[in-house]
Amino acid sequence: MTHIGPGRPRLEPRRRQGTTPRAEILDAAAELFTTHGYGSTSTRSIADAVGIRQASLYHHFAAKDDILDALLAETITAALELAERLAGLPEPAAVRLYALARFDVRQLCAARWNLGALYLLPELRSPRFAVFRERRDELRRHYETLAAAVVAETGGVAAGSELLPFRLVESVINMRSDENATPGYAERLIPDAVLQLLGWQGDMDAVRAEAARLVERVDQPDHDNDRG
Amino acid sequence: MTHIGPGRPRLEPRRRQGTTPRAEILDAAAELFTTHGYGSTSTRSIADAVGIRQASLYHHFAAKDDILDALLAETITAALELAERLAGLPEPAAVRLYALARFDVRQLCAARWNLGALYLLPELRSPRFAVFRERRDELRRHYETLAAAVVAETGGVAAGSELLPFRLVESVINMRSDENATPGYAERLIPDAVLQLLGWQGDMDAVRAEAARLVERVDQPDHDNDRG
Repeated sequence: MTHIGPGRPRLEPRRRQGTTPRAEILDAAAELFTTHGYGSTSTRSIADAVGIRQASLYHHFAAKDDILDALLAETITAALELAERLAGLPEPAAVRLYALARFDVRQLCAARWNLGALYLLPELRSPRFAVFRERRDELRRHYETLAAAVVAETGGVAAGSELLPFRLVESVINMRSDENATPGYAERLIPDAVLQLLGWQGDMDAVRAEAARLVERVDQPDHDNDRG
Repeated sequence: MTHIGPGRPRLEPRRRQGTTPRAEILDAAAELFTTHGYGSTSTRSIADAVGIRQASLYHHFAAKDDILDALLAETITAALELAERLAGLPEPAAVRLYALARFDVRQLCAARWNLGALYLLPELRSPRFAVFRERRDELRRHYETLAAAVVAETGGVAAGSELLPFRLVESVINMRSDENATPGYAERLIPDAVLQLLGWQGDMDAVRAEAARLVERVDQPDHDNDRG
């Protein structure tokens, strides 16, 4: 037994990533959900993987779907915040869309577990996940608004093309799953393809550089973050 | 009790789609896997949904993963056969790629259940599904070969773009899941976007028409079909 702070005994030494019990539970659950399956994972097996008692797990999460909800939120929160900030800026839509797509691909790749693979779970259609679905829809609409603005500038592509950049970005989840590795090449390939798809024909090098500067400027940790 | 042919009693009248018990089992399993979850569905609940005894189900499928394997095969068999036929034809790569993408989007939309949503199940990484994975990889490589041929003709797009048409086609699975309906618009939108993405700039109306004729010619039910 190992003690972790105020008197709560552990069954075995800490072995998960994460600096808090809550983070360790999330990491263990993410691993089990993405490698063993959501339906096949019990809160008991999550507690076992962390090395805590099931009762301790319930202290942090009342049910398995609360853990899934917290994990799903991690996959979109940062991208949604960035999208909200970008929405009000004067930079060309192509630059803002490139910035959002690149940021989103990177964070979907950087996450320790490929949690986007859980988006297609039928469980997500229940009312329990209505808030998550609404937030992901918001992110999707940000993509569509930016993409429509790019199309309005360039013209000449099929109506409805603005629906596809969000899909192309999320396809990095499928690449990661099929290749069983993080597709490093996607970080440039997908944002490039997003603009290509919309018929945009400007200077791609310039957009890449502007988009990188834009994200750096907007995504400061100490940036105003009080919009809820 | 209702009798269905040679003496095998049913617990209740037939109520599934499908003209054979095997087809009814597949339909029931497809519904349960896509609406309730693969991990949460037992062979018992599949038998109950068909209205047969579990022992009768085992007569057709030895285990739940055999049912999943049969369902997954349905999602790619026709597209893979078409891709193999198209590979040897003299038509321009853009026409053949358009034909394959349109056919594949249509059949992913036409299937009664959105079975592609099961592609990201961690269970699919087990050796049990190695044959399915290999066949889906073959289909992916057909897309990549055709796309690379289009790029070679057009030039000017980012290296690696040939990886994306397959992903764009499969994104219809995500659209269908998010919209909880078949995205009819995708049948034209996605194949158009596939060519746009590759920098192709010919006459889209002409390609659409040629691709439709090509599929009609190649995909005859009485066409030579003995390549295994």
